[in-house]
Amino acid sequence: MTEIGESEAATDVPVAFQDPGYRAAVVDLLGAIAYGEISAFERLAEDAKLAPTLADKLALGKMASIQFNHVEPLIARIAALGSEPMVAMEPFVEPFDAFHTKTAPSSWLEGLIKAFVGDGLAADFYREVAAFLDADTRDLIITSLADAGHAGFVVDRVRQAIVDDPRVGGALALWGRRLMGEALSQAQRVAAERDSLAALLAGGVDRPGLDLVALGRMFNRLTENHTHRMAELGLAS
Amino acid sequence: MTEIGESEAATDVPVAFQDPGYRAAVVDLLGAIAYGEISAFERLAEDAKLAPTLADKLALGKMASIQFNHVEPLIARIAALGSEPMVAMEPFVEPFDAFHTKTAPSSWLEGLIKAFVGDGLAADFYREVAAFLDADTRDLIITSLADAGHAGFVVDRVRQAIVDDPRVGGALALWGRRLMGEALSQAQRVAAERDSLAALLAGGVDRPGLDLVALGRMFNRLTENHTHRMAELGLAS
Repeated sequence: MTEIGESEAATDVPVAFQDPGYRAAVVDLLGAIAYGEISAFERLAEDAKLAPTLADKLALGKMASIQFNHVEPLIARIAALGSEPMVAMEPFVEPFDAFHTKTAPSSWLEGLIKAFVGDGLAADFYREVAAFLDADTRDLIITSLADAGHAGFVVDRVRQAIVDDPRVGGALALWGRRLMGEALSQAQRVAAERDSLAALLAGGVDRPGLDLVALGRMFNRLTENHTHRMAELGLAS
Repeated sequence: MTEIGESEAATDVPVAFQDPGYRAAVVDLLGAIAYGEISAFERLAEDAKLAPTLADKLALGKMASIQFNHVEPLIARIAALGSEPMVAMEPFVEPFDAFHTKTAPSSWLEGLIKAFVGDGLAADFYREVAAFLDADTRDLIITSLADAGHAGFVVDRVRQAIVDDPRVGGALALWGRRLMGEALSQAQRVAAERDSLAALLAGGVDRPGLDLVALGRMFNRLTENHTHRMAELGLAS
């Protein structure tokens, strides 16, 4: 399986792309990830304003900049697959913007948790989906999800805040639950509206797919990882 | 002269840094540039929200990200010179933030012009000052001012807007004049408060400096370049 994937990667257009449905689904997925990174960039740059110190502002600015630097390779791939990147991103503008509007952080700590929990959840989901894709696309997606280890910064700041004032833990735990709820609600909306993505997960003649039981397991893995991330922050989920 | 500069660059600490006043001035200057890039990043990311299309948003996001990517080498150099980067940037937070508050663009076009005119003016000024510095510092500053050719994007957008509706030209010309005025007023404030930067321009025993006549000429060059930039946009200055 790995070897087939690697030999596919060596050709210009992997065999899987002979299926136009597959091509459309990959373009959709790359468009979603690319716009997701652009909106994450905007939100992190915005939240950097809430930073209590210049060092904190710099750390969040760096996270924003890393997100943005992932956009170009994704856009280049969409274009290489014969689609217009702006058109490919367009369907995802509204759901991502809606998510960010509904989860605008009211404090520096809420912003940090959103960056950590939200990006972690998105990365988990895209990694799950990437497992069903050709090796080229999979590698591109995995690379675009690298966060350069800035998660450690968020964990340190949130844990310290709870040490300083244990009462903040309860409100922040609720905040984490709300983030998860809004993310699932938007993801559900996207899945319902974009048949191509649903078809991608369902598989094809020569591609494995997920039945409902497997989808349920995937959902369990996502929520388990969310719970782990909240625990890492010192928060109940 | 160039050869002396290059041999200095090969050693760990150029001769010029034996003068503690020079070292302090360079740290000040690097701190100013670094915070200037951070605040430019924040402002561009903010102005990207005004973008009429996703492609425009992406172009402005890219400009923001490039600015941010310049910050790390500047900060690393400040640390290598034995100073704390956050402390070095601190004196410049208020003047830069004041500039951005006083010149918050009310439209997409105003934001574009601000990016183009403001960054151009800052880059001109730092380049003028860099001419008086050791080769290492000079190279670092020149590199950190590279804009990767995004100016063309701004020029295209503004000229097209004037073609579409020639009446916008008058208001945008006034906007350019206001930007120049605010920039000079903040620069003047910084120069008055930071003796080290004034001393840097005045020169030292083994370093050339500027007398009042030369300062006047430098000021003329800055305003001439501003006029050229406005003309490039199709605007009177």
